[in-house]
Amino acid sequence: MKHTDIRISPGTRVRLPDWDADDRSIIGKKKNDAHERLDEYRVRLETLQELLYAEGRNKLLVVLQAMDTAGKDSTIRHVFQQVDPLGVKVTSFKAPTHYELARDYLWRVHHHVPGKGEIAIFNRSHYEDVLITRVNGWIDGAECKRRYRQINDFEKMLVETGTTILKLYLHISRDEQKKRLEARRDTPEKQWKFLPSDLEVRAQWDDYMQAYEAAMSATSTAHAPWHVIPANSKLARNLTVSGLLIETLEKLDMRYPPPVAGVTDIEVI
Amino acid sequence: MKHTDIRISPGTRVRLPDWDADDRSIIGKKKNDAHERLDEYRVRLETLQELLYAEGRNKLLVVLQAMDTAGKDSTIRHVFQQVDPLGVKVTSFKAPTHYELARDYLWRVHHHVPGKGEIAIFNRSHYEDVLITRVNGWIDGAECKRRYRQINDFEKMLVETGTTILKLYLHISRDEQKKRLEARRDTPEKQWKFLPSDLEVRAQWDDYMQAYEAAMSATSTAHAPWHVIPANSKLARNLTVSGLLIETLEKLDMRYPPPVAGVTDIEVI
Repeated sequence: MKHTDIRISPGTRVRLPDWDADDRSIIGKKKNDAHERLDEYRVRLETLQELLYAEGRNKLLVVLQAMDTAGKDSTIRHVFQQVDPLGVKVTSFKAPTHYELARDYLWRVHHHVPGKGEIAIFNRSHYEDVLITRVNGWIDGAECKRRYRQINDFEKMLVETGTTILKLYLHISRDEQKKRLEARRDTPEKQWKFLPSDLEVRAQWDDYMQAYEAAMSATSTAHAPWHVIPANSKLARNLTVSGLLIETLEKLDMRYPPPVAGVTDIEVI
Repeated sequence: MKHTDIRISPGTRVRLPDWDADDRSIIGKKKNDAHERLDEYRVRLETLQELLYAEGRNKLLVVLQAMDTAGKDSTIRHVFQQVDPLGVKVTSFKAPTHYELARDYLWRVHHHVPGKGEIAIFNRSHYEDVLITRVNGWIDGAECKRRYRQINDFEKMLVETGTTILKLYLHISRDEQKKRLEARRDTPEKQWKFLPSDLEVRAQWDDYMQAYEAAMSATSTAHAPWHVIPANSKLARNLTVSGLLIETLEKLDMRYPPPVAGVTDIEVI
């Protein structure tokens, strides 16, 4: 039985094969209508971001995790295209530097959490510290469990101090990744992105799936649940992410700040 | 005689009344065509940013300075609307914190300069440290001159290490500001932005013009010249800024990185 909801309920033992990477149901019958809907979502998101910024009370943190080619960059580009660059800060976390490694693994991400009225997007995140590190055996199971708890505690503190956290796993199938890597290899304008190291990571596919399952099972909390986004279809993925963002922002019950008292009586000389 | 070029040649003694804030000549005869041109510019800018990011060699720093309501935020929103939020980092510099004030005034801006392949936008900048500080007498003339030199030296170092700096002064007239403040006061959705403190700054208009003239005269260098953007018309402003950005990026002679050797022979298993 495939999951129909994208949210991982706290306490669930995640099995990724139960989640349909290929789910296109959100698109509906007419693809053109779906594209129009996505355009409307973009405009709505622009409006909501403006309100978030104006009110300056809430903070939104979007955490994006996925296997290579699943579309982290592309999701950011398509979903946030219309949104004012003033209000969105994207941080792409690469392999940590020596300076970063000399500190705890939450140090560098903490620096980039959103301020009041801001949206911060983590393109990869502190979750790499329980994924790539675990798959390659750089940390053992006990250390990994300790980190799950530390991450939950850290995120809880962020939520308690006014942050809404949206954790998204872009779910593609192994076959879909093959198609995309081949397309990258065979398209002249995309070839520069094709790196043999991607194939090494691909060879560890099953280990990664296991690491993701374990990490999401342990860290899909009530305060910061994970969402599994069907991502074999880019359109379905973009619609799902946009819709979720809008739903999340609408729940914040935001208001424009009131003007100063007697504003209309103030003369501009 | 009004200036026809927007670039301040190094060594010029700037007199802002000589620059026409109201210049709409870039719009041409048909406003609709100009809007279409702006759309084309947005798409072109998106393409160029992608190339900048892919090549990962150049860094672009855009410095935006202007009086209130001249449209710093609005320029960022309209010009960069189409550009991938992954490749653009906007930093809005507000009044410095105690922590920042305990350090030199270039410290906090240095932290936010663009990395390779990035565009950084400074929404206000280190220039506030020779503007608001000078107008209010927090620094004297000698200190201000010292800072002009320090700023020139700092920017020269950035340029020598691979950064292209584009300094833009959005030029509006005092009358235009009056209209915009009144519109802000009288439009319910905008009233929250209307702050009596804006009127205090407006009362210092002439002092600010003098401070801008002195600062731009001293810091429009060959490596990082200032540009005076006619900004009474939002359309003229957006066209001018977009055009300048495109021209600047095109001059960088960028190329997509080559693929790894024998890319098409690599099998994806």
